Amino acid sequence: MPKSSKKRTRRSQASVEGRAPAFPGPIWGLTILGSLSLNLVTIALLASLYESHGPLRCEAGSSGFVAEPEKAVLIASPQSSAEEVEMVSAEEISVSSTAGSRPTSKDAIINLDHGDPTVYEAFWKRMGERGDIVLPGWQTMSYFSDVSNLCWFLEPEFAHQVRRLHSLVGNAVVDDGRFIIVGTGSTQLFQASLYALSPPDAAEPMSVVSAIPYYSSYPTVTDYLRSGLYRWAGDASTFEGDAYIELVCSPNNPDGSIREAVLSSKNGKTIHDLAYYWPQYTPITGAADHDIMLFTVSKSTGHAGARLGWALVKDKDVAKRMIKFIELNTIGVSKDSQLRVAKILKVVSDGHELPGNKHRLFEYGRRVMSVRWRKLRAAVKASGIFSLPEFQSSLCRFTGEETETYPAFAWLKCEKEGVEDCESFLRNHKLLTRSGRHFGVEAKYVRISMLDRDETFDLFIHRLLSLR
Amino acid sequence: MPKSSKKRTRRSQASVEGRAPAFPGPIWGLTILGSLSLNLVTIALLASLYESHGPLRCEAGSSGFVAEPEKAVLIASPQSSAEEVEMVSAEEISVSSTAGSRPTSKDAIINLDHGDPTVYEAFWKRMGERGDIVLPGWQTMSYFSDVSNLCWFLEPEFAHQVRRLHSLVGNAVVDDGRFIIVGTGSTQLFQASLYALSPPDAAEPMSVVSAIPYYSSYPTVTDYLRSGLYRWAGDASTFEGDAYIELVCSPNNPDGSIREAVLSSKNGKTIHDLAYYWPQYTPITGAADHDIMLFTVSKSTGHAGARLGWALVKDKDVAKRMIKFIELNTIGVSKDSQLRVAKILKVVSDGHELPGNKHRLFEYGRRVMSVRWRKLRAAVKASGIFSLPEFQSSLCRFTGEETETYPAFAWLKCEKEGVEDCESFLRNHKLLTRSGRHFGVEAKYVRISMLDRDETFDLFIHRLLSLR
Repeated sequence: MPKSSKKRTRRSQASVEGRAPAFPGPIWGLTILGSLSLNLVTIALLASLYESHGPLRCEAGSSGFVAEPEKAVLIASPQSSAEEVEMVSAEEISVSSTAGSRPTSKDAIINLDHGDPTVYEAFWKRMGERGDIVLPGWQTMSYFSDVSNLCWFLEPEFAHQVRRLHSLVGNAVVDDGRFIIVGTGSTQLFQASLYALSPPDAAEPMSVVSAIPYYSSYPTVTDYLRSGLYRWAGDASTFEGDAYIELVCSPNNPDGSIREAVLSSKNGKTIHDLAYYWPQYTPITGAADHDIMLFTVSKSTGHAGARLGWALVKDKDVAKRMIKFIELNTIGVSKDSQLRVAKILKVVSDGHELPGNKHRLFEYGRRVMSVRWRKLRAAVKASGIFSLPEFQSSLCRFTGEETETYPAFAWLKCEKEGVEDCESFLRNHKLLTRSGRHFGVEAKYVRISMLDRDETFDLFIHRLLSLR
Repeated sequence: MPKSSKKRTRRSQASVEGRAPAFPGPIWGLTILGSLSLNLVTIALLASLYESHGPLRCEAGSSGFVAEPEKAVLIASPQSSAEEVEMVSAEEISVSSTAGSRPTSKDAIINLDHGDPTVYEAFWKRMGERGDIVLPGWQTMSYFSDVSNLCWFLEPEFAHQVRRLHSLVGNAVVDDGRFIIVGTGSTQLFQASLYALSPPDAAEPMSVVSAIPYYSSYPTVTDYLRSGLYRWAGDASTFEGDAYIELVCSPNNPDGSIREAVLSSKNGKTIHDLAYYWPQYTPITGAADHDIMLFTVSKSTGHAGARLGWALVKDKDVAKRMIKFIELNTIGVSKDSQLRVAKILKVVSDGHELPGNKHRLFEYGRRVMSVRWRKLRAAVKASGIFSLPEFQSSLCRFTGEETETYPAFAWLKCEKEGVEDCESFLRNHKLLTRSGRHFGVEAKYVRISMLDRDETFDLFIHRLLSLR
């Protein structure tokens, strides 16, 4: 889909975007609740994890695999009922026992804290062998993919399929000589961007900011190595200063709002995190054209396990520094995942481009998300104690239709009187979510993944309907 | 192979281990020489890389993809003869044009600066389909591999094959409940180890040291983010202090010597980098049993492009911190590469364990390395202007035979009168190597990769024989 010159008409904004007072000080972590899996086999395996309750400090995770220092959480022992709970150190279960697995009963603990995109598994199973790839034992053994490319560890076929997909969807400018840099997920590319945009010899670290509510991993990933190059400086809206790196996530994690940079200065830099700017989540209103744009397959096709992302970068010197970071950090990026994802992206583009093809990922994703959001809004309305952001529809230039916004996360606000901590409230109903505190706002908010498997999502809706 | 209580009798030491005065100050980088590839197609593609000569600072690379700040290097323009060279900024070609490719003529530039393990390609091609793997489109989409494992992103089959291979080779203790942590190459695991061993709240960064000659990437990878947790403190042999992290690489990169920690203190920690402790390079004299041991497939099976390594870790709290680092740095490790390498390791173990199997990787590797070292020593002797380390043979408990040491790198010393800078001397003969300066020692030394493809290695020997 070629870039159009039509004026952008989009207005969708989260109505409860949460300009609440920022939680004091940097947010270091997030309580993840332990859980009782009713599957006894799983529990037996897990038991070994809970044996020691050491005071090891535990930073927040980069994508939701997070725990709060020394904060104890509820965890059921294998034989206990839901009421007989024991306390363990949260860091023991930074990955909760129910993560990645299916619920085993109606009152199972439901973990929607992480954004694990298993909703896409059903699509890829239906695709049969179309998405399969064979990797010969002798292939891609060298460190090098293409020494004629500035990004020497970038597989040419992966780069080709990235350009092709963006051209098809029309969500980002790729055809103007801009650099494609592959990363081990967009998390690595985010760090590569910080490294590239921070002056190497400055006396003070560069300030890194993002408007609240910001993605909970931004502060922790910025600060975990206590770098002298950059440091987390909180809410962009209240930042006072001239030099900064502003992180702009659009559609925004956690609240789904469409965003632009809130700061402006000749010494300011921006990084645009466009992980969710895909047609299943939001109308594609135009081809994004920013200095640094980050994407990931985790949220576009659902292949989080591949740990693969890419950056589109305008400036050659910035691209070089980002490449240098990845060289120093991991000496390039898995070629196996690049080749696999190249195949996956090819199948996605083929599905939308070839006539008669019924396997269209973005149609599938959009249909599933619209059903889920309808169910969620109905449940929230029925409960009477929650609220959700509202979004205006816009013309999607990919589908050619006026379409709704269906974010990958629900940004739920608890309106129930006397409940200040929505995460605790939901945890008591065995529903694991991420508190607004970790996004720089009030604890009345929680972020809930909308990308889990059907059975988990349906159980979540069922649970929500039981709350009053 | 069980751990034996026999007294270690090994004595092999590099005779020219280079206790020369350390190069003053931290080593930030390394000059990589640009080159004229006589393949004009390649050159045409490369030309775009050389267009700008900006002063961007360029840190040393993590595995040899390194360049020295603002140090100009020789690079031939596409049409020039070898004598008509122009100067470009080294950082433009941190990956040299001949890296990863085959020489195209007898006087081609030979790049043996990197340790690209393409020598193994021939073995895996001979294996036919045995090393192939099919990855279905719907597989391993989740972030999670195994939530019952502390290392939740570790694929169980990969862990199984790692244990199996170590048990077969007998080079490391794995059967005592020690933790296996997968990483995006051992470079990421090295950083995870620094993170895990550094107190999170210390006022001063932890000192990171290694005895000269040390792996050239240690200083740069330690310091590139100017972490407040740890910082490079140079040669372990001259370190004065009580608290430190000592890096022990054995067999050592660059000189192939067998090493033990040189420091000892109750506040000191060690990281053992055992990337080269495999039967093709060195006799296996016993099962290593250290607190943190790092391995990589790059140098064991040759699959550098998979970016996969693993750590064997004794202490649970250290393992947790390392896992946390990888969570924050890249949210786990490519499952595609883990599954592929699991298959590769399985084929290697099968080859050595199953009767009648003629495809034995370590035999192949040992045979190739012994031939190469014989050729190299003959060429060095004929030249009369170089010297090499000598090693004593030892009983290899894997093969059951008295065997020689054949390091993955040649640590060459230039003995020619008037030549103080061996790297420059060789560069003038279109042979790219890495100067001893980057390993903390004199410029009379260079490190040369012994792991390139046959045609490149043979051309290198031919070139060496032409030098007097």
